[in-house]
Amino acid sequence: MPGGEVSAPSSVVLPTAESIENDEAWVWGQIKAEARRDADSEPALASYLYSTILSHSSLERSLSFHLGNKLCSSTLLSTLLYDLFLNIFSSDSSLRVAVVADLRAARVRDPACVSFSHCLLNYKGFLACQAHRVAHRLWNQERQPLALALHSRISDVFAVDIHPAARIGKAILFDHATGVVIGETAVIGDNCSILHHVTLGGTGKAVGDRHPKVGDGVLIGAGATILGNIKIGDGAKIGAGSVVLIDVPPRATAVGNPARLLGGKEKPSRNVDVPGESMDHTSFISEWSDYII
Amino acid sequence: MPGGEVSAPSSVVLPTAESIENDEAWVWGQIKAEARRDADSEPALASYLYSTILSHSSLERSLSFHLGNKLCSSTLLSTLLYDLFLNIFSSDSSLRVAVVADLRAARVRDPACVSFSHCLLNYKGFLACQAHRVAHRLWNQERQPLALALHSRISDVFAVDIHPAARIGKAILFDHATGVVIGETAVIGDNCSILHHVTLGGTGKAVGDRHPKVGDGVLIGAGATILGNIKIGDGAKIGAGSVVLIDVPPRATAVGNPARLLGGKEKPSRNVDVPGESMDHTSFISEWSDYII
Amino acid sequence: MPGGEVSAPSSVVLPTAESIENDEAWVWGQIKAEARRDADSEPALASYLYSTILSHSSLERSLSFHLGNKLCSSTLLSTLLYDLFLNIFSSDSSLRVAVVADLRAARVRDPACVSFSHCLLNYKGFLACQAHRVAHRLWNQERQPLALALHSRISDVFAVDIHPAARIGKAILFDHATGVVIGETAVIGDNCSILHHVTLGGTGKAVGDRHPKVGDGVLIGAGATILGNIKIGDGAKIGAGSVVLIDVPPRATAVGNPARLLGGKEKPSRNVDVPGESMDHTSFISEWSDYII
Amino acid sequence: MPGGEVSAPSSVVLPTAESIENDEAWVWGQIKAEARRDADSEPALASYLYSTILSHSSLERSLSFHLGNKLCSSTLLSTLLYDLFLNIFSSDSSLRVAVVADLRAARVRDPACVSFSHCLLNYKGFLACQAHRVAHRLWNQERQPLALALHSRISDVFAVDIHPAARIGKAILFDHATGVVIGETAVIGDNCSILHHVTLGGTGKAVGDRHPKVGDGVLIGAGATILGNIKIGDGAKIGAGSVVLIDVPPRATAVGNPARLLGGKEKPSRNVDVPGESMDHTSFISEWSDYII
Amino acid sequence: MPGGEVSAPSSVVLPTAESIENDEAWVWGQIKAEARRDADSEPALASYLYSTILSHSSLERSLSFHLGNKLCSSTLLSTLLYDLFLNIFSSDSSLRVAVVADLRAARVRDPACVSFSHCLLNYKGFLACQAHRVAHRLWNQERQPLALALHSRISDVFAVDIHPAARIGKAILFDHATGVVIGETAVIGDNCSILHHVTLGGTGKAVGDRHPKVGDGVLIGAGATILGNIKIGDGAKIGAGSVVLIDVPPRATAVGNPARLLGGKEKPSRNVDVPGESMDHTSFISEWSDYII
Amino acid sequence: MPGGEVSAPSSVVLPTAESIENDEAWVWGQIKAEARRDADSEPALASYLYSTILSHSSLERSLSFHLGNKLCSSTLLSTLLYDLFLNIFSSDSSLRVAVVADLRAARVRDPACVSFSHCLLNYKGFLACQAHRVAHRLWNQERQPLALALHSRISDVFAVDIHPAARIGKAILFDHATGVVIGETAVIGDNCSILHHVTLGGTGKAVGDRHPKVGDGVLIGAGATILGNIKIGDGAKIGAGSVVLIDVPPRATAVGNPARLLGGKEKPSRNVDVPGESMDHTSFISEWSDYII
Repeated sequence: MPGGEVSAPSSVVLPTAESIENDEAWVWGQIKAEARRDADSEPALASYLYSTILSHSSLERSLSFHLGNKLCSSTLLSTLLYDLFLNIFSSDSSLRVAVVADLRAARVRDPACVSFSHCLLNYKGFLACQAHRVAHRLWNQERQPLALALHSRISDVFAVDIHPAARIGKAILFDHATGVVIGETAVIGDNCSILHHVTLGGTGKAVGDRHPKVGDGVLIGAGATILGNIKIGDGAKIGAGSVVLIDVPPRATAVGNPARLLGGKEKPSRNVDVPGESMDHTSFISEWSDYII
Repeated sequence: MPGGEVSAPSSVVLPTAESIENDEAWVWGQIKAEARRDADSEPALASYLYSTILSHSSLERSLSFHLGNKLCSSTLLSTLLYDLFLNIFSSDSSLRVAVVADLRAARVRDPACVSFSHCLLNYKGFLACQAHRVAHRLWNQERQPLALALHSRISDVFAVDIHPAARIGKAILFDHATGVVIGETAVIGDNCSILHHVTLGGTGKAVGDRHPKVGDGVLIGAGATILGNIKIGDGAKIGAGSVVLIDVPPRATAVGNPARLLGGKEKPSRNVDVPGESMDHTSFISEWSDYII
Repeated sequence: MPGGEVSAPSSVVLPTAESIENDEAWVWGQIKAEARRDADSEPALASYLYSTILSHSSLERSLSFHLGNKLCSSTLLSTLLYDLFLNIFSSDSSLRVAVVADLRAARVRDPACVSFSHCLLNYKGFLACQAHRVAHRLWNQERQPLALALHSRISDVFAVDIHPAARIGKAILFDHATGVVIGETAVIGDNCSILHHVTLGGTGKAVGDRHPKVGDGVLIGAGATILGNIKIGDGAKIGAGSVVLIDVPPRATAVGNPARLLGGKEKPSRNVDVPGESMDHTSFISEWSDYII
Repeated sequence: MPGGEVSAPSSVVLPTAESIENDEAWVWGQIKAEARRDADSEPALASYLYSTILSHSSLERSLSFHLGNKLCSSTLLSTLLYDLFLNIFSSDSSLRVAVVADLRAARVRDPACVSFSHCLLNYKGFLACQAHRVAHRLWNQERQPLALALHSRISDVFAVDIHPAARIGKAILFDHATGVVIGETAVIGDNCSILHHVTLGGTGKAVGDRHPKVGDGVLIGAGATILGNIKIGDGAKIGAGSVVLIDVPPRATAVGNPARLLGGKEKPSRNVDVPGESMDHTSFISEWSDYII
Repeated sequence: MPGGEVSAPSSVVLPTAESIENDEAWVWGQIKAEARRDADSEPALASYLYSTILSHSSLERSLSFHLGNKLCSSTLLSTLLYDLFLNIFSSDSSLRVAVVADLRAARVRDPACVSFSHCLLNYKGFLACQAHRVAHRLWNQERQPLALALHSRISDVFAVDIHPAARIGKAILFDHATGVVIGETAVIGDNCSILHHVTLGGTGKAVGDRHPKVGDGVLIGAGATILGNIKIGDGAKIGAGSVVLIDVPPRATAVGNPARLLGGKEKPSRNVDVPGESMDHTSFISEWSDYII
Repeated sequence: MPGGEVSAPSSVVLPTAESIENDEAWVWGQIKAEARRDADSEPALASYLYSTILSHSSLERSLSFHLGNKLCSSTLLSTLLYDLFLNIFSSDSSLRVAVVADLRAARVRDPACVSFSHCLLNYKGFLACQAHRVAHRLWNQERQPLALALHSRISDVFAVDIHPAARIGKAILFDHATGVVIGETAVIGDNCSILHHVTLGGTGKAVGDRHPKVGDGVLIGAGATILGNIKIGDGAKIGAGSVVLIDVPPRATAVGNPARLLGGKEKPSRNVDVPGESMDHTSFISEWSDYII
């Protein structure tokens, strides 16, 4: 997380340069310290914090336990899911890197994210995304029926519907997350922030590659609907409530229903920061809004 | 489903002309064959597949079991719900016809629907719709309190909120389904496809008949909000993200917020296929989009 | 509820002037009578009605039991939550007043709300709001970790995501409620009606006070997205599907994406009734719609 | 139950001559009346009484529901067991006759049995015996694995271990029941009363027919251990704590460790009543005790 | 517990003279300290210890929570039982005195009882006895149906079957406890120790007062069967495996099947200590054994 | 298991000489084959068989899953127990050897044991013993609180109460098992068979080493009570219902209450086979019985 600053409410000091393994260990250490502090201050929550975090020897065990208990049902037992999650997280370090990157993304970008443990335990977007990563691994291992069963549980429990074939990068923040729908052939790059009720949908009539391709560092506002095999370039912004059916060039901004490019189709204005990280949801809409009224 | 072709990813051969009873038996046979194949290839899922499908002697038993386990709570036990579902599905063949028609609709129209069993087990839109049909039967039998309790469970578990008095035809695809809200006096015809976050809402101020009437073969895109006792004619299309407060003539297309008719109010352009079946979500929006920008 | 009339489908007679305590007792008496009637007419539901309502000696016990069972998980037990809810509802009469006011709001404003017990048992918006009030109390008592854990459960179970720091008045109707997102520094006044998929969101880039302030008597239509630290004045209306980034003056109406004021920015038209109570969702949109097309 | 008198604490009037069907209906009517009375007097129990008894349309449905919920586990779901019990009780009237006869036996012989519903809901001996009858039917239908799984659940839940192949008559009272063990080739006649911790065991070394054969009307006292393929004749009594390895002639009494016949091997004294019905546990032991000391 | 010494494995120092309230507070303080020590040393158990002990503000809350979770079923919810236990323990200080006395009895008499918290959490005899005390209170309040439902749950869960009408003193140790059966009109004094598989049974033929009356300080060995309305005098001992049908005078010892008095009927030998406290199970049997062989 | 023959009802052929690893693999192969056969013949049980056996890759995984689900409670989650069992079984091959030896013991000695999978799934004695072995490992690792919590769950669920400090050999058959109580300092050798309701108890008055030491190949009949730090020699037999307070020499037989040696104290008769394996429960009692009457 080069250059990442933790937002104001917290006073933790982040490491400057560390290997991936150290990074995971550092974040896990933070999580345990936070949970210990919360367990001490709130006895009513201590049992919960011990079972989900403090009794575990690693982040992947804690996460596998938590997901297993959240996603289980009377016909898909928690032990089966726990085993499945643990096996996959343990055997694939790229998934663990993504877990840590997503935790950091929430911590840095969301002012309401008061701690890593808060994200790990309570963010349905974070949890749905990690469970999706496991479903995606299963999908790629030709274990589609299991991937789809997991997909269904994620959609029931978190109201987040990501097709297991969809490819999602790392350092992703799904903020609030309720109602997110991401289709089978969608792709999302790294460092994106996606708000609730966002749809990356198909065109309906097509078979095959039919969903949006979202680049790195993209910000997609609440309720945006992006349809079809179109490109949302690196560093683009999509305004809340937009309905997007056209390619959006890198660093451009699309707003409205139907969405148009700020600055015009020919020479769209370009964002100077990385919207997926800076999370400026509204200034551009205001700008546009002022313009069109 | 005369003339229906299953989409590319599958190679099943569909029957050409069969009676309703045979049709149900044929679909149930397919479901069992699919589940058996999946159980063989994926031991981790076999227990789930046996309990939900392979241990049952009929589609209505399988569905009643699955819905009972999905919708139960600590105060509404699975045995009670199972009994309720089984009694109603067993005694009303029109409900079973609708189950089969909905399964076929998902299988034919949704490229991501890889098998009938996938829809039966995993599609929250399908499951919410079948549970709604039971709640609707209860409502019509003057068992409102039970119908409303079931309605509440469906809304909690699937985030799909269909008032038990609403009348819904058959061969309906609720795709993704999260966030669908359908009011008390709404009506939906046959062969419709309705995406997630769609609202068929009341006008708020009115008592009595106050929700939309949707014809046959209608396609309603993601996030569309249709309000008031208005008519959406047969074969109409509603664009994603539209806010519709006006009647939409048969085969017309409405898009935008507020929604307008493509081709103009006086002489709207007319769809040549059945949008609810062809599922073309976007070409018309693009057309309109190009037009208005 | 001065002057409140219960809508047509019901024939209950409401009290004209009663103290708060009597009011709570009267509503609880109604709820028990309704539940007894329903238990008598529907044996399949009687067990549910006895466990949730008829076995309890007060409204706060019934509500605490129901919320405890709805929101519990394998790691947050129902007994713990029941105890927590009961302690807080018992010790804070203002919460009990709000419970009663919200029950009355649903009963009076929503034609589909056939009884108080229907709202108490089945309205996820009502239940999420009462659980939020408890989380808010915890937040103000510096018990943030517990408040956030409760917040997470409410978001998982009801798909209603209200930050525990958000301040919400009384006599609030969250109708349908799925997908509602309300941020940390948002404020909502009394007598508001808020439909499903409504967002009171932050601007993303800001830390600190960054969410909307909604006055009294406001009506916010389905799918409206209101972003940033802006003011929605008393008695304002927000149209369904609107994206609002500007202040809306008292009694004004904002519609569209991006939202504009009906009547124009300079001299907006003014509502003559209290929209949050009259619940007229659509006439103004139609008016506007006619105007702009 | 010709001539049966209900013991003092109760004032119900029993029918004098009725067909089996009427008998079942009469007992079921009594059970519902008792449950209704208890639900009225004890709101805390009403939910339980409605779910177990008052919501059901027949005794076999109530019993199947109750057994399904008692015997289920995370890997054997209540719906599966309910279905199994209901199918077997519905299709085999001899099982229903035995249910009624056992209910009557408890009601008449056990002074602590205050009502039929008390036995139906609370007597683990009664419940274990009815579940055993179902397991026995499964055994005879060559469904041994399912019979043995059920056997295991009965032994876990009730601490009553009856091999599914064991044959048990009707009008049986298993009083207290904890610790009862009955082996594979054991047979028990009608009208027997068997106390807790009773073993009808094998000889260990034998294969094949190796367990006791108990006649009609036998009384077996608490903790008696009866081993091997021996005969306990009609109307015999076995003293509490006895260890029996010899045939006991009809109407004879065996006591002690090792057990001897009262009156001597050659000319044992004979009971004049039916011990299994009169339930005199102790007078004979006292007699013997006086004799041998 | 005047003069009670805690057995060797522990080094706690007991208070010398304290009022009842102080005593309860002192024991509760010990329990919390023990649980904290165990939670620190064993993270895998910390969640359990927090939920059962460390999150509670009093012994009666902890016990009510633990019993509610142990005894609940799908038809008798934990919240209902928790509420019931808490109300009764809170309102009746004599029950709380008995809880503390029983905890002390286990701690002092049972060498395997390593801590108070061990007894509170793990001793089924202790837990069954406390739940029985609540059932007994309900019985005396004319709430028989609820008392009997609770009785049934205790018998299912702990395999300890104590009729709710039975009267049991305080400072009772039910050691191991599995298989204990105590009938409706049985009475047990203070300071008794009762091993597993002990029966205080009826004579079967009688109605009314028909079970044993056990005095203070009595020791009853494993598997002893005591039948009929007989007297077991203060300070008596009953040998393991005995079958007792005769009165046993104070301080006398009965052994054997049928049981005889050590020293003979006319002039039985007398115990010099309090057997219920000293827990000498065997020396007397050996003595007798040597004598009779 | 030299020379062990499987009893008649089965036709499996056992291996003659195999290493331990092969043995475990062979037994696991048998279990899977049995489960597959049963799943094919009984669809209602297939889900259970897949979740408990067929979805697992090894015997220790299957057993850990099954024990985790059997022994879990609302405060000790199945995932935690599963993890604990799996870790200990995986890391200690001597435990796995004991599992296999116990499975073989049940299969060879108990005529009612129709298959290995039957024992693995359904024998509470087998399951309690394996869970005890894990608790014993924890005890020896100074993790007493967790060992005692597990002990408590075993006693609740199986009514088998084995103190975690007790040392138990391998190839043990606990037949029926309900009510078995084994104290803290008890020791049991290899190849023993122990029936239900057997107590290896303390003398009560002693602290320290106070429970029986049972040699190899011992058979203990149902309901036998063995008290104090006495020796039961290799190859000894204890009759059903005996109360034993004296040392029993190797190959001797003790019967009665109080127990005496067959053949007399001076020159007891000696068994020629290994009673723990041959399981002759009764011939010696008959012999003795004939003698003493």
